[in-house]
Amino acid sequence: MTLLLYENPVSGNCYKVRLILALLGVEYERRELSVVDRSDRVQVLGGLNPSLTVPTVVLDDGRPLAESNAILWHFADGTEYLPRDSYERAQVLQWMFFEQYRHEPAIAVVRFWVAIAEDDPPPGVDIEVKREEGHAALKAMERHLGEREYLVGERFTIADIALYAYTHVAPEGGFDLEPYPALRAWLDRVAAQPGVVPITA
Amino acid sequence: MTLLLYENPVSGNCYKVRLILALLGVEYERRELSVVDRSDRVQVLGGLNPSLTVPTVVLDDGRPLAESNAILWHFADGTEYLPRDSYERAQVLQWMFFEQYRHEPAIAVVRFWVAIAEDDPPPGVDIEVKREEGHAALKAMERHLGEREYLVGERFTIADIALYAYTHVAPEGGFDLEPYPALRAWLDRVAAQPGVVPITA
Repeated sequence: MTLLLYENPVSGNCYKVRLILALLGVEYERRELSVVDRSDRVQVLGGLNPSLTVPTVVLDDGRPLAESNAILWHFADGTEYLPRDSYERAQVLQWMFFEQYRHEPAIAVVRFWVAIAEDDPPPGVDIEVKREEGHAALKAMERHLGEREYLVGERFTIADIALYAYTHVAPEGGFDLEPYPALRAWLDRVAAQPGVVPITA
Repeated sequence: MTLLLYENPVSGNCYKVRLILALLGVEYERRELSVVDRSDRVQVLGGLNPSLTVPTVVLDDGRPLAESNAILWHFADGTEYLPRDSYERAQVLQWMFFEQYRHEPAIAVVRFWVAIAEDDPPPGVDIEVKREEGHAALKAMERHLGEREYLVGERFTIADIALYAYTHVAPEGGFDLEPYPALRAWLDRVAAQPGVVPITA
């Protein structure tokens, strides 16, 4: 069986998976699911992922795996994109949990409602509050990147992939990255890595 | 140096760390930070954790580590609480990312504003919306646990610890667990594990 990726082209979470697979030269098939009309999610993903989210992959042995950063880890482990040192591995996880808790729920969500969705945000999504939360996440990254080239261990890892995915398209959601020079230099550094494909690839 | 844990007694995220350290018999010192008055966070945690969150640990070699589930992974790796099989390890991460993205931001946040905080929730926190999101997370767990004893690999792992932390205190936030029999049986199973300490320990 070929690796199968349920995904959406505009999703940064899905881009993370496309990017690690491109870097590793792994072939796969794509199945596109809408991020706007989710009415087919139970039918397509019900047996694969209790959260019904994309990305979901079905590995070449038929077993499913979900959550973008868990998929990144699975493919990167044993490669140059995930350190072997146990403290550095824990730091990679620290940044990936930061991404899913502090960064994505603000920056990706604002981008979605500003640039992608066809409706107004539902109750419970306050765009201005999320914009402030997004800038707090960007500030935390800026402080960290002011003293180093990459997020962990001074080399390009899946921590950088996880945070690059939605940071580099944050301006689509109206986030001005001008106040974050170290972060912008890091974005350029990641984009210049050999084998990095764009989100549109 | 002794392992140092910056934490708060009511925080489920901090309880995860206390629980794995108790299971492994690791000694540590606690430093309590308030989850209500956060005015000392920059001073105490500024050099240790860009997110200024608890739990933050300082390892016995002086290096800091943050994000509860990254700390769980760091201590559990190489022990019985984290499988060696690469697919099972990825599944542990899948559930831990589910916890931080779908479960904690709903269930822990409702509990905080209902049972712990001394003020009303700020703009952007809609308790009723979060309550619905919390039940969606509990339903996903119920579906999964209806067919198995533990979240991953049919044994007790840090995926169970990560999700037990806020699930077992969800009723403090007004979540009725009556509709989730498989989840309730799993809560009992986790609580009965040798060495499990209560959140108040």
